[in-house]
Amino acid sequence: MREKLRFAVLGGGSWGTALVKMLSENLDTVGWYMRNESAIRHIKNEGHNPNYISAVEFDVEKLALSHDINKTIRDSDVLIFAIPSAFLENELKSLTVSLKDKIIFSAIKGIVPESGKIVGEHFHDEYKIPFENIGVITGPCHAEEVALERLSYLTIACADDDKAKKVAKVLESDYIRTKISDDIIGTEYAAMLKNIYAIAAGIAHGLGYGDNFQSVLMSNAIREMKRFIDRVYKMKRNINNSAYLGDLLVTGYSTFSRNRMFGNMIGKGYTVKSAMMEMNMVAEGYYATKSAHLLMEKLKKKSKTPIINAVYSILYKGKNPKKVFAKLTEKLD
Amino acid sequence: MREKLRFAVLGGGSWGTALVKMLSENLDTVGWYMRNESAIRHIKNEGHNPNYISAVEFDVEKLALSHDINKTIRDSDVLIFAIPSAFLENELKSLTVSLKDKIIFSAIKGIVPESGKIVGEHFHDEYKIPFENIGVITGPCHAEEVALERLSYLTIACADDDKAKKVAKVLESDYIRTKISDDIIGTEYAAMLKNIYAIAAGIAHGLGYGDNFQSVLMSNAIREMKRFIDRVYKMKRNINNSAYLGDLLVTGYSTFSRNRMFGNMIGKGYTVKSAMMEMNMVAEGYYATKSAHLLMEKLKKKSKTPIINAVYSILYKGKNPKKVFAKLTEKLD
Repeated sequence: MREKLRFAVLGGGSWGTALVKMLSENLDTVGWYMRNESAIRHIKNEGHNPNYISAVEFDVEKLALSHDINKTIRDSDVLIFAIPSAFLENELKSLTVSLKDKIIFSAIKGIVPESGKIVGEHFHDEYKIPFENIGVITGPCHAEEVALERLSYLTIACADDDKAKKVAKVLESDYIRTKISDDIIGTEYAAMLKNIYAIAAGIAHGLGYGDNFQSVLMSNAIREMKRFIDRVYKMKRNINNSAYLGDLLVTGYSTFSRNRMFGNMIGKGYTVKSAMMEMNMVAEGYYATKSAHLLMEKLKKKSKTPIINAVYSILYKGKNPKKVFAKLTEKLD
Repeated sequence: MREKLRFAVLGGGSWGTALVKMLSENLDTVGWYMRNESAIRHIKNEGHNPNYISAVEFDVEKLALSHDINKTIRDSDVLIFAIPSAFLENELKSLTVSLKDKIIFSAIKGIVPESGKIVGEHFHDEYKIPFENIGVITGPCHAEEVALERLSYLTIACADDDKAKKVAKVLESDYIRTKISDDIIGTEYAAMLKNIYAIAAGIAHGLGYGDNFQSVLMSNAIREMKRFIDRVYKMKRNINNSAYLGDLLVTGYSTFSRNRMFGNMIGKGYTVKSAMMEMNMVAEGYYATKSAHLLMEKLKKKSKTPIINAVYSILYKGKNPKKVFAKLTEKLD
């Protein structure tokens, strides 16, 4: 590794913007790729992202902004991907530079629809990045609270401890604390699964279930998440650590979570299609539900994941949410 | 045991009222003791409790109401105590009938201030009730949602499985599901500890910490709760079951929780005394904090419970909440 690593964030959404803010606290130069050229012009002229967490003021001198993904990658050693998983593969298709020798951290919470894999696995399998060069940055962390500099905790996972520490160091500040983990598979699956459980929480709310049920649902969700992750990759992990339980809670209890909102509309009677059109976007948990369900089916562990199954049958089989949840409640305790 | 057990609820607050509602769904006669004679008259005449969850309509024919605690106890086999722990000992002092041969279930979440013990231990140590005749009824369950018949889950804990099942059976209905447990110590400590963590959540909110921090706090709280309970009484238990984690969440995330509200006022700068006066009551977590802290001190495990220690030093040592929480954040992860 270089003595002084060069960092870049790929993605101009709210989470990408929050990560650039964190890095700017510690680094003189932060690479930042985004597609939207007019947003780049705005940031250069006005010092803030016009579209996401625009309250964040940047020292533009520090930003190496570009709408050329190849340039940003060429000029950087550590690439932090914060592109929605649904668009990731489309962006990567335009690469002409090699990702070999790059350190790749995923700040994406979701499944790559083209491969059905979590981002770390996708980079490993499809781009031959060795696992020791792959890492995960995970919350619990709403970008909006980073903008307000409210104290937040990140978990930085990498098989290579030294790389995890280096990334943690440049993200830390007065309002960001970090923790190291070697569980790249588990933390990334947790970040993906929590979106499914947030959809479930939304459906329950939309159907009129209350706070008592919500707490039972979350209690069952964390146990289901543990069974799921243990089945995919068994290792010693405390599922109640912030990267797993904390991340589940911050999403499952947030009325701003897009996944919860999506579920809420489904619970209130919208079809999947009309809910998506109304929100003008696809909630990440939608893809995650399918992948998670298929994976458990393949592993013959469907019986272990009643909440995922319930969400799957509502979103993909057109089953009646009220009936599905009435049955689900009998499987919870 | 009698073939047909006679059940009574002791206490006229919202939780007591909710329990009477549950029992009325299944039983022809429910004993109900409360101190307030005018409330009894109101219930008899109007069919609802004037002071708590008054939307609940009772079939008054089923209620054996009395303001004479000795009469209610004499006429019952299973006594469900729902009297705030701060007033319990005062009520018990007036007993002339024996509690011997009674089955005693505690629906009280707290510490008896006079003995510093949880309710089950208190009945065992002070009233010589054998453990097989002591049980616990615990949530996650806001009484207000029982009034609305929103689906809720109760855990019924008793060393004697058969008694737990009998109590569970009379509480179950369309909107109440039950689960049996043999962990009377753990469930009762969890119910008590969660009030301390709700105070902590309130303090954090009052100090301006956000949702990201709240989720980290809850993730640390459930790990701390596990360490605490394992130290008090080690047995095989899944701390993520609804009786532990669910109960923590329903309280810690509720803006209606009196404990959270109390903490919030402390975080906003009220003194303990003025917060109590303003609320016109003492939050149960206030006593719980002292007892929990003393117990850990006695067991030399103070280092294991940073959140309880922080709340203790604010409530009982007059320490500055802002400074105490700034230090606490360094111990969380």
